[in-house]
Amino acid sequence: MNAKGVINVRTKIAAVLADGQPGTMVDVRGWVRTKRESKGEFAFLELNDGSCFANLQIVVDGKLPDYTTLIKQITTGASVAILGEIVASPGKGQRVEVRATELRLLGTADSQTYPLQKKGHSFEFLREKAHLRPRTNTFGAMARVRNALCYAIHEFFQDRGFLYVHTPIITTSDCEGAGQVFQVTTLDLAKLALSGKQKAESGKPAAEASSSVSQPSALSPQPSLDYSSDFFGKKAGLTVSGQLEGEAFACAVGDIYTFGPTFRAENSNTTRHLAEFWMVEPEMPFYELEDDMQLAEDFVRTIIRKVMERCPDDLQFFNERIEPKLLESLKNIVDNDFIRLTYTAAVDILQKSGHAFEYPVEWGHDLQSEHERYLTETHFKQPVILTDYPRAIKSFYMRCNDDGKTVRAMDVLVPRIGEIIGGSQREERHDVLVDRMKECGLNPDDYWWYLELRKYGTVPHAGFGLGLERTLQLITGMVNIRDCIPFPRVPGSAEF
Amino acid sequence: MNAKGVINVRTKIAAVLADGQPGTMVDVRGWVRTKRESKGEFAFLELNDGSCFANLQIVVDGKLPDYTTLIKQITTGASVAILGEIVASPGKGQRVEVRATELRLLGTADSQTYPLQKKGHSFEFLREKAHLRPRTNTFGAMARVRNALCYAIHEFFQDRGFLYVHTPIITTSDCEGAGQVFQVTTLDLAKLALSGKQKAESGKPAAEASSSVSQPSALSPQPSLDYSSDFFGKKAGLTVSGQLEGEAFACAVGDIYTFGPTFRAENSNTTRHLAEFWMVEPEMPFYELEDDMQLAEDFVRTIIRKVMERCPDDLQFFNERIEPKLLESLKNIVDNDFIRLTYTAAVDILQKSGHAFEYPVEWGHDLQSEHERYLTETHFKQPVILTDYPRAIKSFYMRCNDDGKTVRAMDVLVPRIGEIIGGSQREERHDVLVDRMKECGLNPDDYWWYLELRKYGTVPHAGFGLGLERTLQLITGMVNIRDCIPFPRVPGSAEF
Repeated sequence: MNAKGVINVRTKIAAVLADGQPGTMVDVRGWVRTKRESKGEFAFLELNDGSCFANLQIVVDGKLPDYTTLIKQITTGASVAILGEIVASPGKGQRVEVRATELRLLGTADSQTYPLQKKGHSFEFLREKAHLRPRTNTFGAMARVRNALCYAIHEFFQDRGFLYVHTPIITTSDCEGAGQVFQVTTLDLAKLALSGKQKAESGKPAAEASSSVSQPSALSPQPSLDYSSDFFGKKAGLTVSGQLEGEAFACAVGDIYTFGPTFRAENSNTTRHLAEFWMVEPEMPFYELEDDMQLAEDFVRTIIRKVMERCPDDLQFFNERIEPKLLESLKNIVDNDFIRLTYTAAVDILQKSGHAFEYPVEWGHDLQSEHERYLTETHFKQPVILTDYPRAIKSFYMRCNDDGKTVRAMDVLVPRIGEIIGGSQREERHDVLVDRMKECGLNPDDYWWYLELRKYGTVPHAGFGLGLERTLQLITGMVNIRDCIPFPRVPGSAEF
Repeated sequence: MNAKGVINVRTKIAAVLADGQPGTMVDVRGWVRTKRESKGEFAFLELNDGSCFANLQIVVDGKLPDYTTLIKQITTGASVAILGEIVASPGKGQRVEVRATELRLLGTADSQTYPLQKKGHSFEFLREKAHLRPRTNTFGAMARVRNALCYAIHEFFQDRGFLYVHTPIITTSDCEGAGQVFQVTTLDLAKLALSGKQKAESGKPAAEASSSVSQPSALSPQPSLDYSSDFFGKKAGLTVSGQLEGEAFACAVGDIYTFGPTFRAENSNTTRHLAEFWMVEPEMPFYELEDDMQLAEDFVRTIIRKVMERCPDDLQFFNERIEPKLLESLKNIVDNDFIRLTYTAAVDILQKSGHAFEYPVEWGHDLQSEHERYLTETHFKQPVILTDYPRAIKSFYMRCNDDGKTVRAMDVLVPRIGEIIGGSQREERHDVLVDRMKECGLNPDDYWWYLELRKYGTVPHAGFGLGLERTLQLITGMVNIRDCIPFPRVPGSAEF
């Protein structure tokens, strides 16, 4: 305890393994991964505290007070506090170990019921134990890699003078006009359903009884509800992208990025979809598509390189246990310039490839994952940026090319994953944007403030979006995106 | 355009003002704040690009091509691109200015309709223009300060080996058992209300007709709805805190912090409440309350010091225009140790103060803002950490003291604001926690996974929460919290 009463003088295991000097005393604490006993004379504990992938070996002498009682209770998952001396390790694979002089059991883990016994568990099983799975090798490594990636993202943008902007999560603007928005409400749903019912039981005509429901007209087959008593006085939902609000900031304070949760109420039970995921969206005024591509390329290469530098043990584990080509494919991305070509040129390559694709390649259709992987894995064998996609398959806010057929979109494709980044130069011309909204079936009035960015001091600008969990699939080789986020939200499940 | 086709070679104004060497050519772009013309011979533009508080003065010679036409269109809010030479500025308040050799108008801003003319606007007015307000001095400064604060928060924790963890936004666990949760749903509300109605119109008994509504029983006066067809198959809502999930990670991978959006469906129209705000929540295994307090103090002082170092011009502006004691009070926090005393001792001081409070001070009641401010501003004249609050007014997860009356809570109080941090040592004893849940009217079964953290390898641990926008009120002096977040969400409004 120091002068200020601070009790916690523990040393993290990462520091002991990296810098611990034999002969010094150390206070380490953590969770026991395994225990090996030798005839009551001593025991070896493998201790992990999450600060690094490796365990610290603790040698517990049988002569320590209460040894027999204590060591019986110290099973896999138990938490302990150790005071001991750092000694050079005679064993392989570790520089030092700790010889305990004091052993305190903090919490037991009943070996009959503790779900994480030594044997391997399926990822499916571990998803049901999302509160405990970070105690395993795989999910401890994932937590460290995710952290390293997130911080590398912040560093990348901060080093370049970008401002981090928090765009809203709850919104009444429906960015893409899609039907995949979660609704947010404080209306009492049970009462809502019941009120019609109870009034109906009283014999009154329902149209009078439930005054909060407006009559569906012939023109609007979708019944609509009066939201004046809802929290925001309007129908509100969870954001599907912070881009539009990000543009407002970019057109005021310069280069910005958002980094926040994003939501899609898509009923997709795949290994690539989450209902809640994190997205990074930079937006830069005075950028045209070429600048946007260069930034995206620098970004992808820099953040992967940083994670490789900072989490070598964790990535080594993923390479050995999860995806044997992991490190090779990451090195390919970090070391190579990205090939750039148009969507049209890519379609030409694919059509002439002679490869039998499941989905035919046709100009005007979106590329499938198999096409993207063919380009990056077979044809070019390195990352590719495709540009100038057909306008019919891209969003309203992308800048129209003069050919009348394509827009200034760009997708970054990488081996193993396919699209990792989608971006575009934005349409900064007010009247062109209005026409394009109408072409896409959107009502320009709903976007009054977005259009005002083009009305007052409009500038060329561009941006892109990177899905964090998709990037973690790339960096770790994990097959299921549900294993790349602490608590996955998918159809039918929002546990924990 | 360089070898890779990069077009954007602009220099940010911050760099020109800080490092620009007279005699060098520069490409600057931004928005015109003001224009002064001198008899058709030349004009001065004050150009801002958001990279710093200050504007860059541009001297436009009347002899430039199309000068007369161009300069007429360049009004406040217009966007321009300037090629020019950096020259030493003869004027006061700036080291250098730029003499334009090429002037390109990118976008006009009609002076009849552009809402941000030179005259000052009320903050109320600007909230209606949240897409444009970052173009003003105040909200440009706020964007930079918010960015600097956020990054300082990440740096603080990363420097100490904490892992950044994303806890879920959508959740079916109701953390505090409060009724202030926004519901998240994909049920069609209009149909829900209508279905009861339409069935009723068809003459069938409503109880049969709307099968998704279960009958309210005598024991449960709240009607409940069958959520099996909702997206998550259960009633789901927006998180009010990531703490419980943060604890699961802390009890696996060590020191962690969360930093994400948090929601309260509280119908409070005050200057201190938002329905959506950002919160930072560190959680540390093996920490007891003293460690927690020390970390909180280091944290508050470090992040404020960093913002003062990195945004001196922005804070100077807030000090001059918003809160005259701003810098003085921030210096007070950075330079002084925080006083520590118990809630009980604080109540004693307040009761003996002779000060006439609006709300009486009584042991067992929560302190009001006026009490907190009396302690920090009048009595101690520096920040204060209060500990060991009455258990009846604190949450179930706080560790119970042996006195049976208090819990190991701590609140950090600062001048001008009052509480800026709330934290506690957590109850790590399984059976004590179960009893405490029951005492608080909670059902332990709803917290099965949280209790398992105490069942398997439990450890002492502690954490705290800091509200980002409350901290921005402290750092900028802005009175209304709605002006401390890009797009505020409050009762009746989720625009943009």
